[in-house]
Amino acid sequence: MSTTTTIDPGELRKALGSFATGVTIITARGEDGAPAGLTVNSFNSVSLNPPLVLWSLANSATCLPAFKAAKYWAVHVLASDQDELSRRFARSGGDKFAGLEIETSASEVPLLKGCMARFLCRTASQHQGGDHVIFIGEVLEFDRTESAPLVFHRGRYAHATTRDPAEPKPRAAHLAGSFSEDFVGYLLGRSHFRFFAQIRPFLEAEGLSDMEFYVLSALTLKPLLSGDQITEGMAGVLDERRHAALDTLVARGLARLQPDGYELTPRGREAALNLIAAAKGIESQVLERLGPSDSTVLKSLLNRLLTAIDNHNPDAL
Amino acid sequence: MSTTTTIDPGELRKALGSFATGVTIITARGEDGAPAGLTVNSFNSVSLNPPLVLWSLANSATCLPAFKAAKYWAVHVLASDQDELSRRFARSGGDKFAGLEIETSASEVPLLKGCMARFLCRTASQHQGGDHVIFIGEVLEFDRTESAPLVFHRGRYAHATTRDPAEPKPRAAHLAGSFSEDFVGYLLGRSHFRFFAQIRPFLEAEGLSDMEFYVLSALTLKPLLSGDQITEGMAGVLDERRHAALDTLVARGLARLQPDGYELTPRGREAALNLIAAAKGIESQVLERLGPSDSTVLKSLLNRLLTAIDNHNPDAL
Repeated sequence: MSTTTTIDPGELRKALGSFATGVTIITARGEDGAPAGLTVNSFNSVSLNPPLVLWSLANSATCLPAFKAAKYWAVHVLASDQDELSRRFARSGGDKFAGLEIETSASEVPLLKGCMARFLCRTASQHQGGDHVIFIGEVLEFDRTESAPLVFHRGRYAHATTRDPAEPKPRAAHLAGSFSEDFVGYLLGRSHFRFFAQIRPFLEAEGLSDMEFYVLSALTLKPLLSGDQITEGMAGVLDERRHAALDTLVARGLARLQPDGYELTPRGREAALNLIAAAKGIESQVLERLGPSDSTVLKSLLNRLLTAIDNHNPDAL
Repeated sequence: MSTTTTIDPGELRKALGSFATGVTIITARGEDGAPAGLTVNSFNSVSLNPPLVLWSLANSATCLPAFKAAKYWAVHVLASDQDELSRRFARSGGDKFAGLEIETSASEVPLLKGCMARFLCRTASQHQGGDHVIFIGEVLEFDRTESAPLVFHRGRYAHATTRDPAEPKPRAAHLAGSFSEDFVGYLLGRSHFRFFAQIRPFLEAEGLSDMEFYVLSALTLKPLLSGDQITEGMAGVLDERRHAALDTLVARGLARLQPDGYELTPRGREAALNLIAAAKGIESQVLERLGPSDSTVLKSLLNRLLTAIDNHNPDAL
C-alpha cells in the first residue's frame, strides 16, 4: 500500500467506490410538514436484536435539519427499474415528490411505492462522523418484494446477477488455447444453435429452413423491405443463402415482390407470427429457468456485446 | 407496510438482504501478535474530510476483543474471484491466514493480496449498536486495482455488471410480437453471426468454411474423436454439413481417420491453433470494449443459459 501522507479525495472516492452497494431513498417529514428525501448508498444494517440500521448524511445537505429533527424516517431499497427515481432523489432542490404516488405511515413519514424493501425507523442515535452525520435507527416496520436490486458501483448504476455456488468452470481443454467453453465465440455459437434447435421442429412443421425463417422474420420488422434493407436488418444473420430463401418464400406465397421491395403476404404474416409465438414460448421456458433478474441482465449484456462487436458499423435496422 | 408489532428476525434478515453490498475482509493484529480477520459486508464510507469509514461487528464474534483493542485495522474490498477467500474468513475458528501470502503494514496490520481496494485505518471511535459494535476508522493509506467486485445479495454471492446510462431499449417493432431485439433468440443469433463475421476472413484465408472450422475446432478438444463424439461435443453447432466438412478436412490433410475415430494431423493442429488464436484475438478486442467485469458476467450467464437450454439433455463433451 502506498504510504500516502496526504489523502487525495478524488482517489479516495474512487477506491471507496470499489465497494458495491445497493441504492436507497430515505424519507422523512420535515417540521414544516413538507416531505424530505434523498438518495443514499451509505445504508447498512447494524443489529438484529434490537433491529438497528444506519446511514450517513453530509453536513452540507440541505435536508440535514429535517432529518436531524425527525423522530421517524423510512429507508426504501430500490429495485433494478427504479434508477430514474434514484436520480430524481439524488438531485438537490426542487420538489422531489412532485407527481409521485405517496403513502404515509401512521408516523407521517412519506413512503414510496415499487421498492424492493422498505424499513420504517425511529431515530435511535446520531453521531458526528467527520463531514457526515451517522443516523442509527430502530426498525419498527418493514416489507419487501421479490425483485432485482439496483446496484451502485464505481459511481455508476449496475445490475447484480446471482452466481452459481459452483460457477461453471471451463472444462479441461486438450490443447492450450483450444476452442473451449471460456471462449465467447463458442458460447455464443453453442447458445444460438442449441436455442435454435428447440425452435427448428416448428420450422420443419412449416417446411421452412433456418434461412427462410430468418428472412421471414426480417420481413416482420417493416411493412416493405428492399433486398438491401433485409440484408441490413438481419446483418450478419443472413448469408448468400438469403437470395434462395427469398425466392422460396415468394414461390410458396409467403412473401411477394412489390416495386419498392418485399412484403409479407397475409399467409406469410400469419406463418411468421405463429413461428415467432412458438419461438417466444421456447424463450419463456428457457428464461424462466434462468430467472427474471439474470434474463434482464443477459439481454442487456448481449445488446452491449452487439455494440462492442459492431463498433465500427453501428447502423442496422 | 405491515404494522408488525414484533419483528420476525428471519424476515428482517431477508428484507435487509435486499440491499446489495460488496464484500470485505477486515484484519487486525491481536494483542498476542496473532492475525485476526473476518468477512464483513456492513462496511461503508462515512466522510471524505476527514476520511472515515465504518463497519460493525457482532458482540458475539470471537475476534471482537482483538478489534476492540486494535489501534489499526485494514479493510479489503474483495474482487469477483475472491469468493473462496470470503468463505474462508466467514467461518469462525481455525487459522484463517494459514497458507496465505500476507503483507504487513508498518503498523503491523496483516494485509491480503489480490483485492479490489484496501484501506488501512486507525480506529476513530467505537459505538455500541444493539448486538453489534460499530467501528469508525480514519483512512491512513489505501490502494485499489481495476477489477470486478464480489457482491453479496439475498444471502448469496453475485456479480455486478455496469448498466448503460441509457440502457438499450427494444427498438419499435412493426408487428406486435415480432422478432425484435428483446428476443433472446434474435440477440444470440445476431451476436453469434456478427462475431463470427469477424473471424470469417481468417477462415477464408485458409480456404475453410464455417462448418469446416467448427469440426476442426471440435477435433482440438480431444486427441481422438469418433464421428458421434464430434457431433456430441459440438452439439447443436454442427448440422448435416459436418459429414462433408469432415471429408474435406481429411481430403486436405488436416484430419485423418484412425480405427477409433478422427484426429488432427500436425498440419491440421497447426491450422486449428492459428485460427483459434486469431479468433481469440478478435474476442479480446470485443471483450475489451465490453470491459472485464461485464465480460466475466456475460460468460457466466451464457454458461447458465446453456444449462437452462439443455435442461433436459445435460450431456455433451
